[in-house]
Amino acid sequence: MRFDIITVLPGLLESPFAHSILQRAQKKGVCEIVVHNLRDYANNKHKSVDDYPYGGGSGMVMQIEPFAACIEQLQEARKYDEVIFMTPDGTTLNQTIANNLSTKGNLMVLCGHYKGIDQRIRDVFVTRELSIGDYVLSGGELPAAVLVDAVVRLVPGVLSDETSALSDSFQGGLLDAPVYTRPADWRGNKVPDVLLSGNEGAIHAWRDEQALARTKERRPDLLDE
Amino acid sequence: MRFDIITVLPGLLESPFAHSILQRAQKKGVCEIVVHNLRDYANNKHKSVDDYPYGGGSGMVMQIEPFAACIEQLQEARKYDEVIFMTPDGTTLNQTIANNLSTKGNLMVLCGHYKGIDQRIRDVFVTRELSIGDYVLSGGELPAAVLVDAVVRLVPGVLSDETSALSDSFQGGLLDAPVYTRPADWRGNKVPDVLLSGNEGAIHAWRDEQALARTKERRPDLLDE
Repeated sequence: MRFDIITVLPGLLESPFAHSILQRAQKKGVCEIVVHNLRDYANNKHKSVDDYPYGGGSGMVMQIEPFAACIEQLQEARKYDEVIFMTPDGTTLNQTIANNLSTKGNLMVLCGHYKGIDQRIRDVFVTRELSIGDYVLSGGELPAAVLVDAVVRLVPGVLSDETSALSDSFQGGLLDAPVYTRPADWRGNKVPDVLLSGNEGAIHAWRDEQALARTKERRPDLLDE
Repeated sequence: MRFDIITVLPGLLESPFAHSILQRAQKKGVCEIVVHNLRDYANNKHKSVDDYPYGGGSGMVMQIEPFAACIEQLQEARKYDEVIFMTPDGTTLNQTIANNLSTKGNLMVLCGHYKGIDQRIRDVFVTRELSIGDYVLSGGELPAAVLVDAVVRLVPGVLSDETSALSDSFQGGLLDAPVYTRPADWRGNKVPDVLLSGNEGAIHAWRDEQALARTKERRPDLLDE
């Protein structure tokens, strides 16, 4: 699959895409992530891509023309399944949406900045608006990185152990049970006996029980769905 | 304020903290962000910090000893208001939590990886568990960057225009009204007349109406709170 990310801060996204699972996925050829500098599409010599808001108020607004030039150039080269705008008033990203997007071919992701982007970009070009949560960030770059990470790790062949992604929190509708590794005793804090018992049935039962208890305590809303 | 972030992938966090508002906040001396490589605290020559889970199953689990060594060294140097673990089963981050954390002095942030971290790290050291949303990521690094960004931009002196952060989405309990900038007419897509009217009262009224309508349509849950 391919991601095209449009941003005024391409440098901000360098290190998140150059490490760990996203680096491996690109090296394996499972996904391609192309970051575009919106300023390359500015129609003025100062490379400015924002202007004052109509009607007054604080903050600058990103203009439609540079976005239009970049989006239309990309759309001439290939068909996109979605043009996604990362925005705090979009639909909240969840695992179901991530699963769904992981089956797509080409996704374009627009990062806003400053006070926002001209509403007409959203009206004319954007097919899906996503938020990563109910908090305000400096721009859409970190949300775009979060989206790419959440989606790419679900693409078959990315994680070395395919069962890993399927047993993650949320995939089964429950939070994960607690996990432990060596040492069995750390300053008197011990690993639960059952995990050392070698009794697979008992271990499964304990994990199910713990996952359910943790979900009931922390996220009862997940059980209502 | 100061953030100490503990991770096995310090390189992943380089570019997000070196751009935009987080860069400016550090240059101004408003905040200090220190990233610690957990492997520097490994107690073996291979610098490994994870091991197989007790009780079997897929994925590796991060061990308590390297975290304990790093956390205790930091705690000897200064007092921390919170030791935060980024995890999908934590409390979901929202603007109220970000506002609250922006008043703190020293925050430590632990990034998990692989299948998770030994439960005893959470039991012994962690004072607060936060999730950035209901989706699984490759590790806690992007969530840590999101947390730092959401919090630091609220610290007085970070944003150039202080009214900017206060008028953001969520701060007033409503989503933002649409914003527009030049040109007034783009391929026949026009800016609403009221924004060009110069009538401040009418503009305020329109924005309030739009913000309420957008919130009702997209996030009626925000109005119930």
